[in-house]
Amino acid sequence: MFVLVNLKAYPCDPIEIAEAVRDVSDASGVDIAVAPQTAHLSQVAETGVETWGQHVSPVEHGSHTGSTLAEAVADAGATGTMLNHSENRLKLADIDAGLAAAERVGLDTTVCANNPEQVGAVAALGPDAVAVEPPELIGTGTPVSKADPDIVTDAVAAAEAVDENISVFCGAGISTGEDLVSARELGAEGVLLASGVAKADDPIAALEDLVEPL
Amino acid sequence: MFVLVNLKAYPCDPIEIAEAVRDVSDASGVDIAVAPQTAHLSQVAETGVETWGQHVSPVEHGSHTGSTLAEAVADAGATGTMLNHSENRLKLADIDAGLAAAERVGLDTTVCANNPEQVGAVAALGPDAVAVEPPELIGTGTPVSKADPDIVTDAVAAAEAVDENISVFCGAGISTGEDLVSARELGAEGVLLASGVAKADDPIAALEDLVEPL
Amino acid sequence: MFVLVNLKAYPCDPIEIAEAVRDVSDASGVDIAVAPQTAHLSQVAETGVETWGQHVSPVEHGSHTGSTLAEAVADAGATGTMLNHSENRLKLADIDAGLAAAERVGLDTTVCANNPEQVGAVAALGPDAVAVEPPELIGTGTPVSKADPDIVTDAVAAAEAVDENISVFCGAGISTGEDLVSARELGAEGVLLASGVAKADDPIAALEDLVEPL
Amino acid sequence: MFVLVNLKAYPCDPIEIAEAVRDVSDASGVDIAVAPQTAHLSQVAETGVETWGQHVSPVEHGSHTGSTLAEAVADAGATGTMLNHSENRLKLADIDAGLAAAERVGLDTTVCANNPEQVGAVAALGPDAVAVEPPELIGTGTPVSKADPDIVTDAVAAAEAVDENISVFCGAGISTGEDLVSARELGAEGVLLASGVAKADDPIAALEDLVEPL
Repeated sequence: MFVLVNLKAYPCDPIEIAEAVRDVSDASGVDIAVAPQTAHLSQVAETGVETWGQHVSPVEHGSHTGSTLAEAVADAGATGTMLNHSENRLKLADIDAGLAAAERVGLDTTVCANNPEQVGAVAALGPDAVAVEPPELIGTGTPVSKADPDIVTDAVAAAEAVDENISVFCGAGISTGEDLVSARELGAEGVLLASGVAKADDPIAALEDLVEPL
Repeated sequence: MFVLVNLKAYPCDPIEIAEAVRDVSDASGVDIAVAPQTAHLSQVAETGVETWGQHVSPVEHGSHTGSTLAEAVADAGATGTMLNHSENRLKLADIDAGLAAAERVGLDTTVCANNPEQVGAVAALGPDAVAVEPPELIGTGTPVSKADPDIVTDAVAAAEAVDENISVFCGAGISTGEDLVSARELGAEGVLLASGVAKADDPIAALEDLVEPL
Repeated sequence: MFVLVNLKAYPCDPIEIAEAVRDVSDASGVDIAVAPQTAHLSQVAETGVETWGQHVSPVEHGSHTGSTLAEAVADAGATGTMLNHSENRLKLADIDAGLAAAERVGLDTTVCANNPEQVGAVAALGPDAVAVEPPELIGTGTPVSKADPDIVTDAVAAAEAVDENISVFCGAGISTGEDLVSARELGAEGVLLASGVAKADDPIAALEDLVEPL
Repeated sequence: MFVLVNLKAYPCDPIEIAEAVRDVSDASGVDIAVAPQTAHLSQVAETGVETWGQHVSPVEHGSHTGSTLAEAVADAGATGTMLNHSENRLKLADIDAGLAAAERVGLDTTVCANNPEQVGAVAALGPDAVAVEPPELIGTGTPVSKADPDIVTDAVAAAEAVDENISVFCGAGISTGEDLVSARELGAEGVLLASGVAKADDPIAALEDLVEPL
């Protein structure tokens, strides 16, 4: 199982969480990565944790003021990036070009989607992974694996129909080890989570609880 | 073959072109439609020509000032709509919601895409048709069927891999009957064209030339 | 006082409301206009009511599929247009270009803004009128003139500081004649309203109630 | 005079340029800052150079995946930020909220605009500085101060009419010391430049040439 901890724009200490993720990942053997704000990438990567971008722009080197250039994200130490998170929905053509940008510099890619149909659509663009996150469950504390398990199994089927090598993750409402096990049983190979760790009083305890059943 | 004449924001007389399209379609038996500006939809539809929207918004009835509501587009007499034209690229989630809006009111749907990968992606969202239009060829006068025939055959294959019932159209640089025949030989069931008719000195002659070999 | 009835994407009959607005405007002598969906513009304008667009695109004639060309909006019978409604926020450069488009074809222009600072900003671009509409009050039924009268007086001051000839309207929560009188007393020369008329069981009665104290 | 070197998404070494800027600024006494990619902010700031963001998002702490949070930009060592560059045009409401975000964390703000009218508009939102950059001159090597000096003097007048304390910068085509002197003579208190330094074979020489006449 792969666990991606998305720090969004939360008022957390990204270094403290990065160190917690690094330590729990090392101790448990579970693959856990952190996606901080772009401006925090290099400081987070210096902790040694697996570091992901929250987004890269669909551009190459050039006159693109205000962009998030894949080369700069990789240069700062990231090894993967999310694209098309429900809080940052992209044009279809920009998902395609964002994937090209990420692949150009060797970043792993996870493209988010609202529902199984959109999972099938983004799978056709050739990412490493897709993540299904029903927007209505984000931040609710009710895991998608419990609220609507068919969304996860349908997403797995939609991705497999396009390419068996694409991993499927799920997100929205995931916070406990039990949620991870449910997600795995439904065919997901990873989870995206955010507030469950980033807003936890004790991030280490939250992470340990998360990976305990694995 | 289906022919969709996109009037874009060209300085043409939409009624004159609509009447030419209607007459040539009736005389030739070829299915030809016109997509005018939204503000011209009802006047164009009154000519009796098959009328398409250039776009519908991904919304339902509600507080959406400035939107192009599918219900209003249908009410004005349109029977189909384009989505995601390269001059009006949409977010993936909005293509999905725009298709839902169009289907809600019975509009036929054609979703445009830049390349075969994006054709595969939009096909997964369940439109009636997809149209491949390489942006670099739009307005050039060099038809995609001649400049890069593999794009058309790859687009047909990409759509078929998702759903055999989805029609594939092609566009960009199409202006003559010969271009239509080439497109058909490559597997396209229709074409999108614009300036070749909308900017023609004699739209009727341009249309007759177009459908002559069919 | 100028009253602009914005039909948004509401599930109303635009012709029925247009006729009600025309009749109440004629009977009362109050200047009332209707802003329907773009696809309904020509049918609404045929009733003889003063007809406004909800938006025009920042473009000239050309390759702009899916745009709302000012020429087409004027051609359909509109004599004015809104820009930058809070449900359709525009880039600053596009407000500027949208105003140029509207002025090119003689459409009156009203640019919306959230607060007095933004009113000052849009006034600098030279519209005919600005409208202050605090987003948090839209659709609440609590009129801005009562909830936060300083916003209206500050907006009037901000516009006057730029150009005394720019009219200031206010919107959000306006539905009764009393609201109109309050708005006028605060210095507004017009109001924007929507659901109070568009969703009324009896639009004529709602309009008559609105203009009664004027 | 203030000089802001915008690295855009150029294929340059941001640390090498940051050190050159720091050294030339120290030696000459001219205030020169660098605006790198967000992902490079902390490494650039560590050189001791004055560091600016190319953009901040119009958001507060919260669920904003893929945003460029002002707090994170400041935390990485930036002391100022650009907003609304012509390559990253923003909605008017987002310029307003982006300024609020920047001010919340003490970042200096420079808002870009295409023309004097837009300079007047952004000045009304209360930034520390505005920068006029005619898009058609960006990257041309022809300085705005030579190609169209009235744009600079009109921009200065437009900003002063709103608030005398707002600095006016100019950009587009600036690359030599002579261009800086011309800009100053037209009333500009600073310049924005990019390729003239970022793409120079010898950034130190380019910077020394730039500040030599001051």
